[in-house]
Amino acid sequence: MSHQDSTILCRLILMPSGRQGKVECGQTVLDAARQLGVGIESICGGRQTCGKCLIAHETGIFQKHGIESKNSHLTPPEAEEQAYAEEHGLDLSKYRLSCSARLKGDALIFVPESSLARKQVIRKEASDLQIAVNPAVRLMYITVEPAILEGTADWERVQRAVSNQWHASDIQLDPVLFPRLQSALRQGNWAITLTLWNNAEVIRIEPGYVERMAGFAVDVGSTTLAGHLVDLLTGQVLATRSMMNPQVRYGEDLMSRVSYGITEPEGLARMHRAVLKAVNDLAVEAAASVDLHQDDIVDVVLVGNTVMHHILLGIDPVELGGAPFALAVSDPVDIKARDLGLTSVSKGAYAHILPCIAGHVGADNAAVLLAEQPQLDDQITLVVDIGTNAEILLGNRTRMLSASSPTGPAFEGAQITHGQRATPGAIERFRIDTGQGQMHYKVVGDQRWSGEIDADQSLKPTGICGSGIIEVVGELFIHRLIDRSGRFVKDAESLHPAVRLQPNGRTYEVVIADSEQTSTGHDIVVTQNDIRQIQLAKGALYAGIRLLMERFGTDRVDRIKLAGAFGSYIDPTYAMVIGLIPDCDLINVTAVGNSAGDGARIALLNAESRKEAQEAARSVEYVETAIAPHFQEFFVAAMALPHAEDKFPHLAGILPPRNSPGDRRKDRSSRSRRTG
Amino acid sequence: MSHQDSTILCRLILMPSGRQGKVECGQTVLDAARQLGVGIESICGGRQTCGKCLIAHETGIFQKHGIESKNSHLTPPEAEEQAYAEEHGLDLSKYRLSCSARLKGDALIFVPESSLARKQVIRKEASDLQIAVNPAVRLMYITVEPAILEGTADWERVQRAVSNQWHASDIQLDPVLFPRLQSALRQGNWAITLTLWNNAEVIRIEPGYVERMAGFAVDVGSTTLAGHLVDLLTGQVLATRSMMNPQVRYGEDLMSRVSYGITEPEGLARMHRAVLKAVNDLAVEAAASVDLHQDDIVDVVLVGNTVMHHILLGIDPVELGGAPFALAVSDPVDIKARDLGLTSVSKGAYAHILPCIAGHVGADNAAVLLAEQPQLDDQITLVVDIGTNAEILLGNRTRMLSASSPTGPAFEGAQITHGQRATPGAIERFRIDTGQGQMHYKVVGDQRWSGEIDADQSLKPTGICGSGIIEVVGELFIHRLIDRSGRFVKDAESLHPAVRLQPNGRTYEVVIADSEQTSTGHDIVVTQNDIRQIQLAKGALYAGIRLLMERFGTDRVDRIKLAGAFGSYIDPTYAMVIGLIPDCDLINVTAVGNSAGDGARIALLNAESRKEAQEAARSVEYVETAIAPHFQEFFVAAMALPHAEDKFPHLAGILPPRNSPGDRRKDRSSRSRRTG
Repeated sequence: MSHQDSTILCRLILMPSGRQGKVECGQTVLDAARQLGVGIESICGGRQTCGKCLIAHETGIFQKHGIESKNSHLTPPEAEEQAYAEEHGLDLSKYRLSCSARLKGDALIFVPESSLARKQVIRKEASDLQIAVNPAVRLMYITVEPAILEGTADWERVQRAVSNQWHASDIQLDPVLFPRLQSALRQGNWAITLTLWNNAEVIRIEPGYVERMAGFAVDVGSTTLAGHLVDLLTGQVLATRSMMNPQVRYGEDLMSRVSYGITEPEGLARMHRAVLKAVNDLAVEAAASVDLHQDDIVDVVLVGNTVMHHILLGIDPVELGGAPFALAVSDPVDIKARDLGLTSVSKGAYAHILPCIAGHVGADNAAVLLAEQPQLDDQITLVVDIGTNAEILLGNRTRMLSASSPTGPAFEGAQITHGQRATPGAIERFRIDTGQGQMHYKVVGDQRWSGEIDADQSLKPTGICGSGIIEVVGELFIHRLIDRSGRFVKDAESLHPAVRLQPNGRTYEVVIADSEQTSTGHDIVVTQNDIRQIQLAKGALYAGIRLLMERFGTDRVDRIKLAGAFGSYIDPTYAMVIGLIPDCDLINVTAVGNSAGDGARIALLNAESRKEAQEAARSVEYVETAIAPHFQEFFVAAMALPHAEDKFPHLAGILPPRNSPGDRRKDRSSRSRRTG
Repeated sequence: MSHQDSTILCRLILMPSGRQGKVECGQTVLDAARQLGVGIESICGGRQTCGKCLIAHETGIFQKHGIESKNSHLTPPEAEEQAYAEEHGLDLSKYRLSCSARLKGDALIFVPESSLARKQVIRKEASDLQIAVNPAVRLMYITVEPAILEGTADWERVQRAVSNQWHASDIQLDPVLFPRLQSALRQGNWAITLTLWNNAEVIRIEPGYVERMAGFAVDVGSTTLAGHLVDLLTGQVLATRSMMNPQVRYGEDLMSRVSYGITEPEGLARMHRAVLKAVNDLAVEAAASVDLHQDDIVDVVLVGNTVMHHILLGIDPVELGGAPFALAVSDPVDIKARDLGLTSVSKGAYAHILPCIAGHVGADNAAVLLAEQPQLDDQITLVVDIGTNAEILLGNRTRMLSASSPTGPAFEGAQITHGQRATPGAIERFRIDTGQGQMHYKVVGDQRWSGEIDADQSLKPTGICGSGIIEVVGELFIHRLIDRSGRFVKDAESLHPAVRLQPNGRTYEVVIADSEQTSTGHDIVVTQNDIRQIQLAKGALYAGIRLLMERFGTDRVDRIKLAGAFGSYIDPTYAMVIGLIPDCDLINVTAVGNSAGDGARIALLNAESRKEAQEAARSVEYVETAIAPHFQEFFVAAMALPHAEDKFPHLAGILPPRNSPGDRRKDRSSRSRRTG
């Protein structure tokens, strides 16, 4: 840079952002753009080798902006830039490397999306949420003075190079990487690429110029772990892998794992090791599937419910098993992956664990806040994540509330006569055909309804899962076979051939599939008691929702988002019929899939979102249902079925969608599923 | 504190420091003294339980200071203080707890040494250097609000307690301690003692009130490891343990270890593990010897030469084996002890590794700077640490220089016909008795000279060590049996009965002990070639010293300090006779023993000394002898023996000190010894 030029100012306009301002002439377009707040990508540090900082120079008179942008207003390409252009077929009359082109006068510059340091990544089809790729880690290529006699040490020369070439000072090196620094400098012939975490600490050192970094976002569910391997330069998902949580062997549900940790001397350590091994295995598998070296995984984000969160950190979850349900820590935790036992990622990498909200509302819910952003909306959103406990978030930009309702495991098929998880063979849909008095069902793993197909060709049912039972209860109610109290009406057996007295001779049950249809050789039935279990579960959930609505001071919600696997399976209409969720325009009730996993990916891609998650988690007011004065009252009231006769008259007698096989939500089967 | 009082000022005088000033009335003496820069110890945080903050209130009229100090100028003791006084037999009319007594008027307060936060610890008898006990770790007792329903997490409440009770904010918790936090809070009934590192990070959590913390300072020598376990509250050494460096099996000297690391695929890792295991074992042994729990070792300081420094950090020392002798890092390193593999200390503890000065001048020399402080002196000090290489520090407060001279292993007895290390049986002293033509020697492990005792009772010699050979050469020279070139004079065999022709018939040797005296059954001799080896070694050392003196621009030094084991064994007179060190008034030539170990202990006791060491290490100018233009010239010149005839006439013909058995330096055998 010529020092004479340095006091002359010229006007720089950056499109498409429209940012503009006066900047010192003589500096590179890259530096000038950064001053105006437009971050242009660069890895090679201005050596005209990475090509990340490509810009287009627009020439002409721009009257709106009052400038003339001329060819001569940028310094002509020198040898390195010409070499790069030749090698990569770049037309230098249109495009320039912004690290090379220096301003000599006013200029209008177009910065393509691909050159922006913070690219926008569209999260998913159904959403308009865009995430800027701005991870907690960045790459920094430097050339270092060779070692000389009587000279300074390698690390001191690296610090000097970083300061001179990247204007970054006070960077630290993870001390376990000193051995690597020495060898990388020599392998790279005094050129290395550093990976910097939080602009403060060098966590990886590679010889020469490197343009690879990936991250791993894992949703640690009680039942399933799902991991996304993400390219941290482009934001793209490279691979997704899931597996069953190996802790399942120590207890199906959370509370049995808490008690395993208490009763077995080595219980906590075993569960900790098991889940970390699973995360390691997932990372190894995911990396191998795209030929990525594990050392290229330089950042990790973990989310999970509070019990998983604690076990991940090696904290005994016992306190979460009883009042006052105290978390050991709720703030986000940055911990060296190696300190967790995560050995399948880069040695210096950190794992970021999202914050918890309260004793029963975990980091997975903080991730849901990131993915769904109800806290940024004017409208009142209800987000429900149903598992053994249902976590409820309710509110808008003015106030967010959360609660956890003890729904019990009925929605997961437990404590139901023929209940089972939503695995292939489970009845997940159910209709009563009033015209012919027939029953129709659909099982997981088969797109067709039972009436549409020959019994021989169909996947035979083995039981009934949560969404199936909800539809059974809903249909029985719509067809007035049960009343608002959930009891079969008097002489119900005479109203429909599938209804019969139970062997006790006092209560009824309804046959969903008879022994000839099932793979078990027995009838699959839903009993009076099964209906009672569902009423208890939905009563608990609805009471929690009502409690939050009361606290918030609203008697309606604008949107309902059903998160998690169960939320993806249930039909919102039937959820409303049985009073699982409050009334809401059906178009505003959506299943948002693995929202926690999406949130984990967002936290991986964007460092600022981690602060957002922390602030959001802190600002959420937690309401403990166990001590809320109205909860029991709401619970008792919510046991009954709502006045659906008035609200869903169109449902009575509807037929199953014979002519439109398949599910309402076409993308469901391709979604990653999460279970509580 | 009454808010009305808070604007009234009173005068506080603190003895014996004499610090005084006006402070706000109403506050505790503890807080007021801190404002005046007098740190009073406190662990319990003002709960009147630890008694660390005891002060004496002096009453009367102090005309010199213009104040009257009255009983009524301190608030009377309340219930807690009275309870403490009763329990501990404290006379409250004289002594008060400064965390309890509040100022109501002018007061003169005596702060006993034991209540000062920074106690002075005398380093060693021979030195006036005092070190303030102000370690990098401190204890902090807090009481934390119990967990409640809908309350915040444990860690957030701990942060609040630290902020309220200690006015410290932004403290972090080592995330591996979250499991410990939860259990300690409950075990301690919501009272815990934190150990804080660098006023920033909690590295240990203990339930209840705890008043224990220790540190471990280790000098990792090539041959010997010496570890000091130190009480970090009092500064006292609790235990000292040493052991042979297990790396010796991979090579006696440094260069053979460097080459082991190169030639063996697992060589570096093996040496790293071996030395870390040794440090672990030392810490375990030292802690066990004083019944200290390993978890109470909360800080570690390590020093060593550059090769040991690198191997400790897992860095390949190969670069130190050849030009340009580049260090991977010279700045001090703070690394989690667990990341080094140091498992025998508290889980969250850091290890601080002192800075290196240059490729051949290591962290042990930085420690020597701390212990000897030549850089703070007006006088010119020469510090020499002799091993296979001799490290030389020369200078004063205006400028410090360092160099490493390739003395080779002759001073350690290698490459000498009957040479050996300074272990029991080695001849370490030697005199020629001109009167009777006899030879007298003294061996390591026996305080008596050979002439004083019956041969049967004596420890028979097995060989000769460095200090012995130096005295042999010196005596031969004083008695004119060899000339300035180091050659035996013509017809030397006729001048003394112990001198004889070697079997080659051309060169001479001198018999130091004959076959009847030795335990080997052979004569122990010093040959013409042995003398040549010593000349080469001392020439290299002296040339290095001359080089630094030339660079410094001086032809004299004011003091000479001989560091390390060899420096403790050699007699400064003979060192000067043969020209090992420059001329200096003998009274100013001292053996400073394991100065590196002392420096390590200083760095452990005083966090500020770590910065001093870094600044001192950075400011030292390193002179590479390999490229210094005058080094070869100086080396050749220094091969000759100096004109000792003129300088040490009193030495010719002196007798061994028959009547004063034992060594000149009485404390030598009790010193911890270090071998380069």
